[in-house]
Amino acid sequence: MKLNGIFAAITTPFAADGSLAADRLRENISRYNRLPLAGYVAVGSTGESVLLTRAEVEQVFSAVREAAAPGRVLVAGVGSESTPETISRCKAAADCGFDYALVKTPSFFKSALTPDALVEHYRRVADASKLPVVLYAIPQFTGVALEADLVARLAEHPNIVGLKESSGNVQRVGEIIAAVPEKFQVVVGSADTLYSSLLLGAAGGILALADCLPELCIELYQAVAASNTAGARELNRRILPASKKLVRQLGIAGVKCAMDYRGYYGGPVRGPLLPLNAAQKREVEAVVNSLVATAAAD
Amino acid sequence: MKLNGIFAAITTPFAADGSLAADRLRENISRYNRLPLAGYVAVGSTGESVLLTRAEVEQVFSAVREAAAPGRVLVAGVGSESTPETISRCKAAADCGFDYALVKTPSFFKSALTPDALVEHYRRVADASKLPVVLYAIPQFTGVALEADLVARLAEHPNIVGLKESSGNVQRVGEIIAAVPEKFQVVVGSADTLYSSLLLGAAGGILALADCLPELCIELYQAVAASNTAGARELNRRILPASKKLVRQLGIAGVKCAMDYRGYYGGPVRGPLLPLNAAQKREVEAVVNSLVATAAAD
Amino acid sequence: MKLNGIFAAITTPFAADGSLAADRLRENISRYNRLPLAGYVAVGSTGESVLLTRAEVEQVFSAVREAAAPGRVLVAGVGSESTPETISRCKAAADCGFDYALVKTPSFFKSALTPDALVEHYRRVADASKLPVVLYAIPQFTGVALEADLVARLAEHPNIVGLKESSGNVQRVGEIIAAVPEKFQVVVGSADTLYSSLLLGAAGGILALADCLPELCIELYQAVAASNTAGARELNRRILPASKKLVRQLGIAGVKCAMDYRGYYGGPVRGPLLPLNAAQKREVEAVVNSLVATAAAD
Amino acid sequence: MKLNGIFAAITTPFAADGSLAADRLRENISRYNRLPLAGYVAVGSTGESVLLTRAEVEQVFSAVREAAAPGRVLVAGVGSESTPETISRCKAAADCGFDYALVKTPSFFKSALTPDALVEHYRRVADASKLPVVLYAIPQFTGVALEADLVARLAEHPNIVGLKESSGNVQRVGEIIAAVPEKFQVVVGSADTLYSSLLLGAAGGILALADCLPELCIELYQAVAASNTAGARELNRRILPASKKLVRQLGIAGVKCAMDYRGYYGGPVRGPLLPLNAAQKREVEAVVNSLVATAAAD
Repeated sequence: MKLNGIFAAITTPFAADGSLAADRLRENISRYNRLPLAGYVAVGSTGESVLLTRAEVEQVFSAVREAAAPGRVLVAGVGSESTPETISRCKAAADCGFDYALVKTPSFFKSALTPDALVEHYRRVADASKLPVVLYAIPQFTGVALEADLVARLAEHPNIVGLKESSGNVQRVGEIIAAVPEKFQVVVGSADTLYSSLLLGAAGGILALADCLPELCIELYQAVAASNTAGARELNRRILPASKKLVRQLGIAGVKCAMDYRGYYGGPVRGPLLPLNAAQKREVEAVVNSLVATAAAD
Repeated sequence: MKLNGIFAAITTPFAADGSLAADRLRENISRYNRLPLAGYVAVGSTGESVLLTRAEVEQVFSAVREAAAPGRVLVAGVGSESTPETISRCKAAADCGFDYALVKTPSFFKSALTPDALVEHYRRVADASKLPVVLYAIPQFTGVALEADLVARLAEHPNIVGLKESSGNVQRVGEIIAAVPEKFQVVVGSADTLYSSLLLGAAGGILALADCLPELCIELYQAVAASNTAGARELNRRILPASKKLVRQLGIAGVKCAMDYRGYYGGPVRGPLLPLNAAQKREVEAVVNSLVATAAAD
Repeated sequence: MKLNGIFAAITTPFAADGSLAADRLRENISRYNRLPLAGYVAVGSTGESVLLTRAEVEQVFSAVREAAAPGRVLVAGVGSESTPETISRCKAAADCGFDYALVKTPSFFKSALTPDALVEHYRRVADASKLPVVLYAIPQFTGVALEADLVARLAEHPNIVGLKESSGNVQRVGEIIAAVPEKFQVVVGSADTLYSSLLLGAAGGILALADCLPELCIELYQAVAASNTAGARELNRRILPASKKLVRQLGIAGVKCAMDYRGYYGGPVRGPLLPLNAAQKREVEAVVNSLVATAAAD
Repeated sequence: MKLNGIFAAITTPFAADGSLAADRLRENISRYNRLPLAGYVAVGSTGESVLLTRAEVEQVFSAVREAAAPGRVLVAGVGSESTPETISRCKAAADCGFDYALVKTPSFFKSALTPDALVEHYRRVADASKLPVVLYAIPQFTGVALEADLVARLAEHPNIVGLKESSGNVQRVGEIIAAVPEKFQVVVGSADTLYSSLLLGAAGGILALADCLPELCIELYQAVAASNTAGARELNRRILPASKKLVRQLGIAGVKCAMDYRGYYGGPVRGPLLPLNAAQKREVEAVVNSLVATAAAD
C-alpha cells in the first residue's frame, strides 16, 4: 500500500515570461521534503497539465525526480486524450524513475466514451505501461465519471492498482471501495472530501491544498489514523472553508497565490487561466492567516 | 434534539383498486412501533406525496397519528409548489397533532426559484406555521438544491429548526453542518450516505430503506453512536448495495415489494409509477434474503 | 388541423388578496376575442397551473369557456403528477366543453419516468379521455423530455393527436416532425423558436408572449404563411429580445406586468413566484414601448 | 463573405498501423475538389484534432494546402487548451497559407472559464494571429458555450470575423445572428441544424456529413439559396436521419466508414475511439444506400 497518506498535487511554476521555471519547482520540492508527505504528483490537473507542451511535461518529470527525497512516492500524470499519447507518456515517466502512472480519463469525444471504450483505453494503457496504473476521474472538469461497476471491472487488470477520485461525490467513493478488492487503493483528489473518505476506507489524498497548507492536511490524516475523532472533526471544520475558497473558487491561481504567501514559489498561471485581482489576493491572505494563526494558537 | 435517530419515511399503502388503504397503514405503523425507530415521516417523497389528493393527505396524517406509539416523533410532509397551499398543509398537520412540518422546496418554475425566492417562500411558511419547520432538499427529483449559504440564512429564522438533505452529496452535508448553529438539526434522506453523514455530525436519517429493513438502519445508527467503527463500516458495506438496488434503482415499487417480503403491507404503486416485473421482484427477494440471512448468522 | 395558428397561453389573474379573479379572466378573453388568435390554453404553465387548487382549475376552465368567442379552439392544461388525477382533470375539461386536453409529462420521480412509464401513463390517459390528447414537454422546468422516437410511438394512439414542444430545442422539433404522421400536429411553446419551427413544419405556437403582445405573434405567423421571408425575419428579429426579457428572464411576473402595460389585467403572481421590483418593471415598460412604437411607425 | 456555403470538416486518415496517412488525405481532397464545396476545415473536431501530435497537425495542414484546388477557402483548427499553444498553431497555419484560424474554446478548467477569461483568451489570440479568427463552440463536447452576449463582445475585435456554432441549439444561433454586425459570419457545425440555421441567416455549414455525403449537403444549401422551400424541406427530411445515425450516434468512426462506402478513404479511428462493429457497419451501409438510391431516383 504505497498510496497511503497525503500527496501534494504539485503546481508547475512559470517564470514571469511564461516559461517553465524548473529551478523553482526543485526548490518547492526541497521544502516539501521536510514534511511527512507521502509523495508528489507531477503534471496533474493542478500542475496545469493540459497547458504544458510535451517537452515541458518531461522537464517537470525530471525536476521532480531530481529534487524528491528518497522514499517519497512519485506519481506521474500522463493521461491524454489519445491512447497512443498516453502510452508514450507512461514510457517517459517510467524512464524517469516514477513509481505510478496516473491516467486521467479522456474526455473530448464524450458520447463515444462508453464504458467499453474506457475499458479498452485503460487496458491498452495498462498492458503497455511499465508503471502500475492509477485511474483518475475528475468529472467536474471532464464530464466523464468512473462509476463503481466500471472501476471494479478495471481493477481486475493486474497493472491497474488504484484510483484517484476527484468528483467530490463521497457516496461514489464509498461504493467504489465496497466494489473493489482490498489491495486496490482509492485516494481522493480534494481536501473537502478527505475526512469522510478516509472514514469510508480511502487510502489517502492527492491534494492541491497540500501545496500551500500541507501541515493541516497531514494533521487531519494523522488524526483519523489515530482514531482521534474530535480532533479530526475540528481539523475538517477548519479545512473546509480554506479548500472551498482557495481551491474550488479561486482555482490554481488561488493555490499558487497561497503558496506565495506561505514562502513557496507560486508565481503566475498560464492562459487561459487569469491571475487573481487585488481583492482575491486579499481573500487568499485572509484565509491563510486565519489558518496559520489558528495553528499557532493550538 | 428530537430528530436524532432513524425515521421511517413511510410509504402510502393503496388497495388493489388504487384507493388509499388507511387500515394497512395503521398496521404497518403498529409493527414499526415495536422497533426503536425515532419516529415517522408521513407524506414524504417515499409516501408518493405528489400522487395524493389533498383529502388523501389528511387521511394519511390521521392514520399515522392514531397508530403511532407515544413518544414517536411525527413529521408531516407538507411542501407544495405554492406557498399558500404549503401553509394550508402545515395547518392541517398541526391540527392533527404532528411535531414537525417537512417542507420540500418548490421546483416547477426553476429559473424563478432564486435564493431570494426560496428565502421568501420559507419565511412566509415558517411565519405562518404552528409547527417548527424542517427544510427539505431532494435536487435529483426537483432540480433545486439548498446550498450551505442559503441554509445558514434560513436557519436564522426561529421557526426553521432543521434540514432533511437528500441529495446524496455528503460534501454538501458537511458544509451545511459547518455553516449552521449547533442546535439546527441536519438529517439525511438516504441510507447510502447515512454512515458518512453521521460521522460528519448529522443527527439521523429519514430513510425509505427503514420501511423494509429498519433493523439494519437502526443497528448502523447505534454502531456509530457507540463509536464502534469496525461494526459501523461493516453494516455500511451491507447497506450500500441494498439501498442502491431497492431504493435508488427500483424506487418506491422496490421498497413496497421489499416490505411485502418482510411482512409489512407494501402493495401497488400509483401511476405513473410502474409495478415491478417478475425479474425485478426476484432481485428484491434476493437482496432481502441475503441481508436477513446475514443478520441471522451474526 | 385545428392547432394551426397562434394560441394565447393565458395567465390566471389573481386579486390583490391572492384569490382567483375570474371576472378579470373573462375580461382578458373578451379583449383577445377581437384578435385573430386561433384559441386559448387554460391552466398551462403560464397559467400557474401548479399553484392552483383543483377547485380553482375548474373555475378557470368555466370562465374561459364562457368568455371565449365561438370558433376559438379551447385547450385545457390537465397534466398532473398522478395518472388518475390527470384522467380526472381530462374529464372535468371535457364536461366544460373544451376541445383538447394538454397533458404535461409527470416529472417528480425522474428516474422512474422511463420511456415505458411515459408510454403507459399517456396511453392510460388517452384511453380514458373523451378529449383528444396533446402531449406537452417542457424539460427546462420538468427535467423530462419527449424525444422523437417516443413521440412517434405515442402518435400511434388514435386519441393522441399532437404535441406542444416547449424545450426551445428546434433540432428536436425538426426530428419530431420528421418522425410522426402528417396529421399529428406539433406546436411550439416559445416565441423564440416560433419562426424556425414554422419553417420546419410546425402547426403553430402556444405562447406566453401572445398574452401581452398577441399582434406581433400573429403577424409573424401570417408572414410565414404568406411566404414573406423578409418580413418574417424582421418580425423574428423584433420578437427575440422581447421574448427573452419578458418570458425567459422575468417569467410569469414579467408577462403579467407587460399585460398591465398593454391594458389587459395582469395582476400579482402567486408565491413562491416573486413580484417584479421597480427596475424590472421599467425594463418591461421599455420593451413594450419599443415594440409598440416600432409597430406604430411601420 | 468567404464562409458562405458548405465546408467539409475533413477527417484525418490513419494507416493500418495508426500513423498519419497524408497521401490518403490528399486523395480525398482531390476528389472533393470536383464538387462545389466552399472549402475545407483541417484539424477540427472531426479531424480528431485532440488525438494528433503537434507534428501531425502541421503535416495535415501541409497536405490540405497542397491538395486543395485554387479558390477553396482553407480553415485551420488551432484551438488548444493553452493560450500560447493556440497562438503558436495560428502561426503555423498562417505560414502554411491557410485563410482562417478556427479557435475552439478551451474547456478543461471549466469553472475558471468565465466570460472574462474567454474574452481575454480570444483577444490575445486574435491580437497575435495573422489569420482572421473564427470562434468555435461545441459545448456538448467541451461543456463551454459561447452565448450571444459574449459573441457580440468578441465580434468587436477587428480580427474576430466569425463563429462556428456546433451546439445544435438553433435558438442560440438565431440570438447570435441578431446580436452581431452583419459582416460577422455565423456558420453551423451540424447538418441537423443547417436548414433552420440558413433560414435564420447563417452563412453556411462546416459539416462532418459533407465528408461522406457532400452532394446532399450542397444541394440543401443551394435549395435554400434559391428559395426552393419545398425542395429544401424534403432534403432536410432526408438529411436528418443520416446525420443522426452517421454523425451523432456513430461519430467519427461512422463518418469514416461511410466515406469508405462512398469511395473516399475513411480508414481506422485512433484510440480511445472504437472501430464500428459489424452491425454498426451494416447500419452505415443501409443509410448510405438509401440516400444514394433516393438521389439516383430523383
